[in-house]
Amino acid sequence: MIYLDNAATSFPKPKTVVEAVVRQMETIGGNPGRSEHQGGLAASRIMYDTRQKLARLLGIEDPLRVIFTLNATEALNLAIKGALKPGDHVITTSMEHNSVLRPLETLKKQSIETSLLKADKTGLVSLSDVRQALQPNTKMLVITHCSNVTGSIQPVEEMVKLAREHQLLSLVDASQSTGSIPYHIEKMNPDLLAAPGHKALLGPQGTGFLYMKPGVVLQELKQGGTGSESENLQQPLTVPDRYESGTQNAHGLAGLKAGIEFLLKETVEAVREHEKKHILQLKEGLSSIKGIRLYGPESIDQQGSVILFAIRDLDQTQLNYMLDQLYGVSARAGLHCAPLAHQTIGTFPVGAIRFSPGYFTTKEEIDQALSAVNQLASDF
Amino acid sequence: MIYLDNAATSFPKPKTVVEAVVRQMETIGGNPGRSEHQGGLAASRIMYDTRQKLARLLGIEDPLRVIFTLNATEALNLAIKGALKPGDHVITTSMEHNSVLRPLETLKKQSIETSLLKADKTGLVSLSDVRQALQPNTKMLVITHCSNVTGSIQPVEEMVKLAREHQLLSLVDASQSTGSIPYHIEKMNPDLLAAPGHKALLGPQGTGFLYMKPGVVLQELKQGGTGSESENLQQPLTVPDRYESGTQNAHGLAGLKAGIEFLLKETVEAVREHEKKHILQLKEGLSSIKGIRLYGPESIDQQGSVILFAIRDLDQTQLNYMLDQLYGVSARAGLHCAPLAHQTIGTFPVGAIRFSPGYFTTKEEIDQALSAVNQLASDF
Repeated sequence: MIYLDNAATSFPKPKTVVEAVVRQMETIGGNPGRSEHQGGLAASRIMYDTRQKLARLLGIEDPLRVIFTLNATEALNLAIKGALKPGDHVITTSMEHNSVLRPLETLKKQSIETSLLKADKTGLVSLSDVRQALQPNTKMLVITHCSNVTGSIQPVEEMVKLAREHQLLSLVDASQSTGSIPYHIEKMNPDLLAAPGHKALLGPQGTGFLYMKPGVVLQELKQGGTGSESENLQQPLTVPDRYESGTQNAHGLAGLKAGIEFLLKETVEAVREHEKKHILQLKEGLSSIKGIRLYGPESIDQQGSVILFAIRDLDQTQLNYMLDQLYGVSARAGLHCAPLAHQTIGTFPVGAIRFSPGYFTTKEEIDQALSAVNQLASDF
Repeated sequence: MIYLDNAATSFPKPKTVVEAVVRQMETIGGNPGRSEHQGGLAASRIMYDTRQKLARLLGIEDPLRVIFTLNATEALNLAIKGALKPGDHVITTSMEHNSVLRPLETLKKQSIETSLLKADKTGLVSLSDVRQALQPNTKMLVITHCSNVTGSIQPVEEMVKLAREHQLLSLVDASQSTGSIPYHIEKMNPDLLAAPGHKALLGPQGTGFLYMKPGVVLQELKQGGTGSESENLQQPLTVPDRYESGTQNAHGLAGLKAGIEFLLKETVEAVREHEKKHILQLKEGLSSIKGIRLYGPESIDQQGSVILFAIRDLDQTQLNYMLDQLYGVSARAGLHCAPLAHQTIGTFPVGAIRFSPGYFTTKEEIDQALSAVNQLASDF
């Protein structure tokens, strides 16, 4: 199998990630933050260590500002619903995933309105559009760092700066960039940043996080046992406890810690260089195949490890299925849970095929994937 | 180590549970419900299989009425917040966990009031108290099946029946019973039932579920990508998609499936018989030690696999720490995230020590734990 669906979930995982999950499950009996015995303390420790490693990887000063969640979607819901109040206005973009668009759509019922900035055909949003959308009641700017459809990398640092100048909260959806495109949170300076653990951080599914800048306070999505202030019927206000109710996924987080350690050693810069080569090869290879339409940014510096294309006006989902069945190339077609992004670039409602290489993808696999597309394009 | 903290999280897990997680992580590249390639389909299949096995174990007719969550706390939050509206009244009990009490406390701000029925000294709630608490605006009865503090098993079938007679929604917190005390959902007949995957279901942490009776509709807690109706900015209304946004913990659920398969083979009835023996032995052993106060129900038929005790008026948390450090007995002291339960039985705010044996606990381990308590009680 040639796995080119790392934008959905990374595969394979480093061996150490699986080993860490096994070690946690086999040797640590205990619930993090709950019980005072060796196992309980060891489970708490793995949670803290994972926070600390993540903080080191992403340039977060205080590890306690990392809130663990089931996935990036939960982190985005927590950030959006925890910050907004009736009457607020939000600025976001047509490149967002349904994990941003659907919560905002739901909040319309609570008189929270959204301005959707339309990106250009290559998936990029302009700073001046953000400026023009500002209203007196604008409370938040929500922007994806790297599109999961086209790979377009937004000028997120400038956007966050603009938001700060206008006293807006900034929320960055870093689902596609975290672990794949180097960034430094304290330098990017967002108020909130969400990402999954199972994509380029190479961790298990069932992990994700929200970074909250010191000083930012959100209403929590869920209340429950936190292992702290148990005598109190009120949810504790300390971070991260306030936002992490119930038994956390310490088994999965042990794996995430190993994924982050892998990246600390290899460096995200090296991942980016490796993936860039694949995207360049794919760009060149795909554009030389007759009948292929390529989408996304011109410059590789504005593109993450995602490339989108269509073969003439055929049924792209069907073609993608054949890529898998006939050539063993696993990729994703359709709308990628981001319908407005496809509308923006003109691939709605048919969708297109997305290749997303990872750090373990080889040049030979890209060669084979290109030859499969070539074959399909000439057969149909 | 003698692990007597299965009420916090079960340990060890069956070998097959760890193996299933490893197999899923090592061989299945794909995001459940997202991508149309072999790996994506295999990930979807594991989710469906887990639902189906769980349905078979618990007597649920339609597996699609099982909603997966991060933990039982999330399931309880979804049930409580998804059903209640301003002006509603809720009946619950003093034996509930903070995962029920804290969401209800938060909802007070939205004019949702709660009547808290005080259990008797053994942790049992009476049916007539429920009847007396009924108000014209009562919408829901929330009741824990088995207390995580005293092990008290509530007359939950009668309670649910009473709730149904008065057109209330019934929500059962089955966190301590699921996989440990046999029950049949269609027979118990609740509208909603929540439980974790990592306790007596023997699965990994990061798993939990909410059962929703056919016809019950809740407002979802989170919106996002569901891999379905991607063109639609509205959250899909189909179950389970509506309630499962973002990448699900397929790695953990693969393990949960193996845990459930283990129980299907061994039977929950056998687990109950095994654990009953341990509780009986502990009851007998602890009550013969001078200076020990035992809490909980008289009859073993009203007690799950949890036993609570205190050694004179000493610092129970300190004693528990010594049990772990000096005798390798891992248990949990304190308030167990259920402050009102401790108030009810008279152990607030000091708390008490809880032993919770599991299916893998042996008679020899119980002997050793008893001898450790005996030693401690005579030393101090």
